[in-house]
Amino acid sequence: MIFEIYRNRVNNNLNSLLTRQNALNESMRYSVLAGGKRFRPILTYTTASLFDVKLRQVDACAVAVELIHIYSLIHDDLPAMDDDDMRHNQPSSHKAFGEAQAILAGDGLQALAFEVLAGAKNIMPSIRIKLLNLLASSAFNMADGQSIDLSAVSNNVDVDFLNRLHLKKTGTLLGCAVKFGALLEPKVDNKDIDILSSFSEKIGLAYQIQDDVLDVLGSDESLGKRQNSDLKKGKPTYPSLIGIEESKKAYKGLYAEGIEELSGLSVNAAAMIDLTNKIMHRDN
Amino acid sequence: MIFEIYRNRVNNNLNSLLTRQNALNESMRYSVLAGGKRFRPILTYTTASLFDVKLRQVDACAVAVELIHIYSLIHDDLPAMDDDDMRHNQPSSHKAFGEAQAILAGDGLQALAFEVLAGAKNIMPSIRIKLLNLLASSAFNMADGQSIDLSAVSNNVDVDFLNRLHLKKTGTLLGCAVKFGALLEPKVDNKDIDILSSFSEKIGLAYQIQDDVLDVLGSDESLGKRQNSDLKKGKPTYPSLIGIEESKKAYKGLYAEGIEELSGLSVNAAAMIDLTNKIMHRDN
Repeated sequence: MIFEIYRNRVNNNLNSLLTRQNALNESMRYSVLAGGKRFRPILTYTTASLFDVKLRQVDACAVAVELIHIYSLIHDDLPAMDDDDMRHNQPSSHKAFGEAQAILAGDGLQALAFEVLAGAKNIMPSIRIKLLNLLASSAFNMADGQSIDLSAVSNNVDVDFLNRLHLKKTGTLLGCAVKFGALLEPKVDNKDIDILSSFSEKIGLAYQIQDDVLDVLGSDESLGKRQNSDLKKGKPTYPSLIGIEESKKAYKGLYAEGIEELSGLSVNAAAMIDLTNKIMHRDN
Repeated sequence: MIFEIYRNRVNNNLNSLLTRQNALNESMRYSVLAGGKRFRPILTYTTASLFDVKLRQVDACAVAVELIHIYSLIHDDLPAMDDDDMRHNQPSSHKAFGEAQAILAGDGLQALAFEVLAGAKNIMPSIRIKLLNLLASSAFNMADGQSIDLSAVSNNVDVDFLNRLHLKKTGTLLGCAVKFGALLEPKVDNKDIDILSSFSEKIGLAYQIQDDVLDVLGSDESLGKRQNSDLKKGKPTYPSLIGIEESKKAYKGLYAEGIEELSGLSVNAAAMIDLTNKIMHRDN
């Protein structure tokens, strides 16, 4: 299976990256190699495949976007933030290494993401700059989204607010993962980039609503973290605002809209449609 | 005074950068505009002046290196880290905004540093890539140094260990600030870069030892934070290992060695010698 090949590829690359002899390596490695669906790297490889970009040219982007994602999980799990003590069926970073090392593991992973991408010599400098710019603005928006999320607890929020929040907190980095794959091809046209941006916003929001639904319906084991953890914290979610059934309709509708948009691309989008369908039917 | 011009310039640039309408802006702005000597940006402008680089070409580097420095101070001050409640004569970020927002302010500033530098269109892409690579590896080493520092409390450490620690924790980013100024000139030769690297390692170590001495001798007010804060935490420092007088000799000797090395440069280093002398005679 092609998505399995992508997942193995990013896992191998992450594994060989984290072998430096330094104090941070152990805690970074613990979180990076804990598992995870590698959804963002798979998105990047899949988009790149639509534009015939060679796998080895995609590697740095796939690693970088996943490192940013993992750093955000480590910091989000901290007691001062979401206070989650389990992640991917193992104690979260601060439970395993203490808060200080967890903060530094996140800090180090963010820096490492930029180091990996800036050092990707097989991507020409003018393109690398675009990718770095996108990664930086996405990482910034993600932090901003998390900051909005923190202030949202127990406030009166509506679906519009949730949409804006998810767009920043989850959508930006998913959009980055998708656009990475297209920007690697110098000849990609702006219309394709626009379509992919809009596509990634739709599936980013869908993915987050689906996460919220799974958080209510799933078991601790399949989620790898405590079930219902958002609800217990009084955080507003789609299910808490409009109920489970409407939430399911909402995310399925968004995935379908995303797939529909792909038909406007100048290239064959079958691989991305296949991936979107797989994500829509995930159970964790 | 030229260094005052550089300081005002980076202050103005930082001020105009932090005007976005977003939840993180207030907490980032609070720490970024709290004051501070702007030593790193001044180093960058000064090095660049040796190689006749125009000021406006230096701006992005000066801002980026300072943003990384400020993010590291916010995270270092956190209760789980050094637990300092004052910084630049005002409550530290987590005291003013809570721990969660302080963590995110640091995270956001790190991302912003890379965004500013990646987006510096007046620096050609091949050079920007080098600068981004250096910034990323320096930010990574700094986090690694802080991680080593945390594990050092109450262990038996010697001067060699402290030197290695300071080289990572303080020296790397100071070295980045210095090398930034040279890398901006495409024709700079490797010998000059090597000399500046060695120079920045010496003054980086000197600066840290001097900080430790001032931490013992200075007043709370002039330091902008609690005096003796390292000693109270049982952290190993030069003064605690070899005493105040020997520590003074050590840092003055290192500054002098640094200045001596500058004579090997292919350009006139008077401005950098002037700056180094000013730093050596600082009292906070």
